Amino acid sequence: MANITKKRIAIIGAGPCGLSQLIAFKQAEKEQRIELICFERQAEWGGLWQYTALTGIDPCGELIHSSMYRHLWTNGPKEMLEYVDYPFEKHFGRAVSSYPPRAIMYDYIIGRATAADIHKFIRFRTAVRFVNFDVNTKQFHVTIQDLLNEKILEHLTFDHVIVATGHYTLPNVPNFEGISKFPGRVLHSHDYRGADEFVDKNILIIGGSYSAEDIGIQCYKFGARSITISYRSFPMNFKWPDNIKEVPMLIRMEGHTAYFKDGTSVDNIDCIILCTGYRHNHSYMAEPLRLYCSGNLFIPSNLYKGIFWSAELRLAYLGMQNQTYSLNMFDIQAALVRDVFLGYVKLPDDDDEKKREEDISQWQAREQVIAANDHEGFTDLQTDYIRDIVSCCDQNTVPKFDLERAKAGFYKFFNDKREDFITFRDQTFTSIFPPYNEAPPCQIKWTKNMDDSIEGYLSSIKTT
Amino acid sequence: MANITKKRIAIIGAGPCGLSQLIAFKQAEKEQRIELICFERQAEWGGLWQYTALTGIDPCGELIHSSMYRHLWTNGPKEMLEYVDYPFEKHFGRAVSSYPPRAIMYDYIIGRATAADIHKFIRFRTAVRFVNFDVNTKQFHVTIQDLLNEKILEHLTFDHVIVATGHYTLPNVPNFEGISKFPGRVLHSHDYRGADEFVDKNILIIGGSYSAEDIGIQCYKFGARSITISYRSFPMNFKWPDNIKEVPMLIRMEGHTAYFKDGTSVDNIDCIILCTGYRHNHSYMAEPLRLYCSGNLFIPSNLYKGIFWSAELRLAYLGMQNQTYSLNMFDIQAALVRDVFLGYVKLPDDDDEKKREEDISQWQAREQVIAANDHEGFTDLQTDYIRDIVSCCDQNTVPKFDLERAKAGFYKFFNDKREDFITFRDQTFTSIFPPYNEAPPCQIKWTKNMDDSIEGYLSSIKTT
Repeated sequence: MANITKKRIAIIGAGPCGLSQLIAFKQAEKEQRIELICFERQAEWGGLWQYTALTGIDPCGELIHSSMYRHLWTNGPKEMLEYVDYPFEKHFGRAVSSYPPRAIMYDYIIGRATAADIHKFIRFRTAVRFVNFDVNTKQFHVTIQDLLNEKILEHLTFDHVIVATGHYTLPNVPNFEGISKFPGRVLHSHDYRGADEFVDKNILIIGGSYSAEDIGIQCYKFGARSITISYRSFPMNFKWPDNIKEVPMLIRMEGHTAYFKDGTSVDNIDCIILCTGYRHNHSYMAEPLRLYCSGNLFIPSNLYKGIFWSAELRLAYLGMQNQTYSLNMFDIQAALVRDVFLGYVKLPDDDDEKKREEDISQWQAREQVIAANDHEGFTDLQTDYIRDIVSCCDQNTVPKFDLERAKAGFYKFFNDKREDFITFRDQTFTSIFPPYNEAPPCQIKWTKNMDDSIEGYLSSIKTT
Repeated sequence: MANITKKRIAIIGAGPCGLSQLIAFKQAEKEQRIELICFERQAEWGGLWQYTALTGIDPCGELIHSSMYRHLWTNGPKEMLEYVDYPFEKHFGRAVSSYPPRAIMYDYIIGRATAADIHKFIRFRTAVRFVNFDVNTKQFHVTIQDLLNEKILEHLTFDHVIVATGHYTLPNVPNFEGISKFPGRVLHSHDYRGADEFVDKNILIIGGSYSAEDIGIQCYKFGARSITISYRSFPMNFKWPDNIKEVPMLIRMEGHTAYFKDGTSVDNIDCIILCTGYRHNHSYMAEPLRLYCSGNLFIPSNLYKGIFWSAELRLAYLGMQNQTYSLNMFDIQAALVRDVFLGYVKLPDDDDEKKREEDISQWQAREQVIAANDHEGFTDLQTDYIRDIVSCCDQNTVPKFDLERAKAGFYKFFNDKREDFITFRDQTFTSIFPPYNEAPPCQIKWTKNMDDSIEGYLSSIKTT
């Protein structure tokens, strides 16, 4: 009898969102109410936090998922993304600083997933090739491919599908006159693996957001000769070191010379790094279920509460928004998906698609009036968004943290960067949930810290 | 009346094979017997002969097709691939040497296509997403996507489909222990764009075929410090310059050190270039029509006469074999496809699939006994294959060249390489069709020739 009523739920992707979702469902799985399968293209879990030196295509013929690079350290304070049920201190047995390196982040995320015993739900090296929905049977038809034996396709059915594939994998590549004939290296930040490849080079970075600022400062840290950052709309205007300068939009390349919108030019460019962001790619979803998202939006179209496919609430997309908040927001989204799919709560506009669309439109209207460089404005928006979805969840189980402290933390983070971009990672923050601990500092300044291994990093944190 | 009997034919890809096919059909198009559409993902024609500095993903979100690099010169004598109806001398108005640079090859291929007035048949920036066959109506259903507006999918039907997508785009990436943690640049030859990026570096090349030998010698030409080439089965054993050496299979990477199968190791590797070939990728074909080809074979499975899908002769695959011959073989394959699809000739085993499979098996048996490094053996096989398909064509229209002269030309080419790999591109060859002209030499030795532009190259050829 129990078997007959089991809900079959597919999760696509075992990155941070997929793992949050698996953990959220774990409790229900104990009650034998669901059958859960998570499909993951990669050989390991952890999604974009995995590092590989490889670029381009992986051994299974799939696009390399990760955009991680050597010497990447978090670009926001860890306190603002910390899992409420699994603090860093619990995982490492000691407090860590506010800006740890990638290996620490990966170890932390995987540590929680391991503790939650969810590995068994994941089918690795399995790609979802097509998802369709039968409006009569209310079933999703999912075609998957075994990447270790490309001839094996399997057709499965599910009551629910949760898309957690991320949106930082398919590079957005604008066209610039002359760039295809540039007589040097051109790469997208997706394929950037370390500034040690650019020592003594003149680098042209195209972009004005997180990738551009971080790869720019990495190139400075590792000894590039000069870094020219070309922005589209407005400069980041940080207090850059002497060999970093910001210039307007690239108009064309001619040989090794870059020409910009303001009539200026820079000669002897050795390498162009396109920090021009990513595209959503959900081509494996049948047309009526496919999320199209032009650019990186805080409020994507068609997603009710930023999660549920408005036209068919049995389908959810996790973490599809541009993110100020990340891991802890995914946990709340995952809690709401669980609560709704298992019938613990009802969505406010459960039975009225028009009202759902109105709700989405209202949020979109808020986003549209925020200036593109108003980081505080977007933080306010996403804070309110989280407050909204928390209110929809089962209040007994939703993971909660202090949203006002979080917002204040982000404000401090933006200020730190504006005050001194070179030192912002040396600052410390206070946790946003009890007991509100203050992080210890790292004893090596970030610009001098060349050891991003777990061991090296932990040894640089003062234990009290 | 004429309209009713028009055959609808789709060609996928406007590279060398697709262009040969369009030109072959051109005559029939005049007779109004067919309706022809060629779908091309890229913005321009010429397939893999196009060069772009970009790597990874293109502005439409598609995998960059081309593996071309700066300073690539043909790696075989042009006489062995010359179009019978369009000699190089006709295109350039003068004789050219036997090993021209990429720009010359591209100009030549596009020159013939332009003269043939076939541009109008091509829908550029259009990707074929799915091809299915209805056994009842005997129609192919083809789903295409407008890459400039990703939301636009179109469903078309055809009487015939010809796959001409190439098989040098999706990198084959073997796994090596430790390579994903290598603290330097790792790239596949697909993403290699020029040896000027590797001046003074210690390069590790993995592979033992055309990519490995050419990228190895390019790195030498442009001043890499050392080039270590790791082979899987056997060394190429050319008389390499002092700073190139061949070693057995890579076993693992540890930091910057490479360990090989024979127990030796090389330290201080700066960069690893995977010259490990490509994978066939026909995932847009429905399962029953999909060519799977493990590796680069001279006789692929399931293709009758190396072209026709044995289980459904309305479907053809062009140029899917490993190639000694190339452009001139594509012309003959295209002629046979035209002759068969338009009913000018009947295939020998037209009505007997079992006999077709036997025919394929016999050719496969021949390939299987050829040693992997027996270039002359594979040339004999492909020469006989071409003789076979020529015999199937309408003898009045099939483009013919002297197969014995071609074979002798390839033998000389292999010998030239064995005698002196550094100078083989300075040799000259004789045309394989009347009037059997001897090519003039290039007046600058290849290792010293740093100008691969059309103008630079042509000015270096002595006019008589």
